[in-house]
Amino acid sequence: MRTIDPAKREAKRLQILAAAARCFARKGFGQTRTADICAEAGMSSGNLFYYFGSKQDIFAAVVEQDGADTEALFADLAAAEPWDALTRFLDLAIDLAADADYARLTLEISAQAHRDERIAALVSTNDRLVRSGLADLVGRAAEAGRIDPALDPTTTATWLAALVDGLFNRVAVDSEFAPKRERETLKLLVARLLRHQPG
Amino acid sequence: MRTIDPAKREAKRLQILAAAARCFARKGFGQTRTADICAEAGMSSGNLFYYFGSKQDIFAAVVEQDGADTEALFADLAAAEPWDALTRFLDLAIDLAADADYARLTLEISAQAHRDERIAALVSTNDRLVRSGLADLVGRAAEAGRIDPALDPTTTATWLAALVDGLFNRVAVDSEFAPKRERETLKLLVARLLRHQPG
Repeated sequence: MRTIDPAKREAKRLQILAAAARCFARKGFGQTRTADICAEAGMSSGNLFYYFGSKQDIFAAVVEQDGADTEALFADLAAAEPWDALTRFLDLAIDLAADADYARLTLEISAQAHRDERIAALVSTNDRLVRSGLADLVGRAAEAGRIDPALDPTTTATWLAALVDGLFNRVAVDSEFAPKRERETLKLLVARLLRHQPG
Repeated sequence: MRTIDPAKREAKRLQILAAAARCFARKGFGQTRTADICAEAGMSSGNLFYYFGSKQDIFAAVVEQDGADTEALFADLAAAEPWDALTRFLDLAIDLAADADYARLTLEISAQAHRDERIAALVSTNDRLVRSGLADLVGRAAEAGRIDPALDPTTTATWLAALVDGLFNRVAVDSEFAPKRERETLKLLVARLLRHQPG
């Protein structure tokens, strides 16, 4: 009996998800056919369907993968000095908002969440991961005396998440908004919000 | 020849738009039929089609009306003391985010903008109205010594708009987010961002 190396299997799965994410970002969920994903991933449809049952399943897996990436990010940031970690988070948010495919995929996921309860539940789970990760960083930064100790970590994390949502929405509604040009402004705003104390 | 009183005609048009906005908010654009809008507005389809050519035209008119409301709001705020005006703007944003129909309609408009260039252009026009109105308030508040005079009004207005976008997005992704409970936090955050000087 032929067995598949689990590491190779996972690599193939991630390859399909990356190809699918590009297709969904560029054509939207409705216009993307599984044949497009196969072409982008450079594989046969038989091979694709070995990994995923349907286009719907692939889309859901793309959103789940975004959650897994978020979890890995915050696990990494948990080991860093909390203010540095917050700054790295903001840098990453700017880089992702400036990535045309990622920004369009984010919009497409929001649009699908509006139409599909399974996607809405996944988006909500991912959002909770972001907020709990940020609340942890805010709490640690306050304990370390880097920011206003009177800040409630949960409320502050909610509004930091709102600000990052807003950053992505700016890309959608304002064609002249250039995220990378706004990097220092975003950091300045967050420093003011949190009353950052230079270390 | 029978003529229609222009004031009555405009009142009827606004009545249709309000009914249509409720339908689009509750059922989404795709699921709303013109028959639903007629029922909600309490009028015949012949009467409805006297005012609008299609469901698409009604949706576009709803978005245009939102722009007209925004324009009227900022014309009103232009006469007020600038910090009071900013506070009234934030209060209104909270009230609208807390209005389930309005919050859902906002999401539906974003989703349609993603699929329809005519709606995208209208959304972009409305967003420019918000940003130029806010930039004017920020500039006047700075001149009046109520906020940090070093703030660039255009950049500041962009980020205030981002924060309000984020407020609406919180409603969509987090079922526990209650806008009215966040009213004072939002005002505190904006006061910190702009380094508000109590008058």
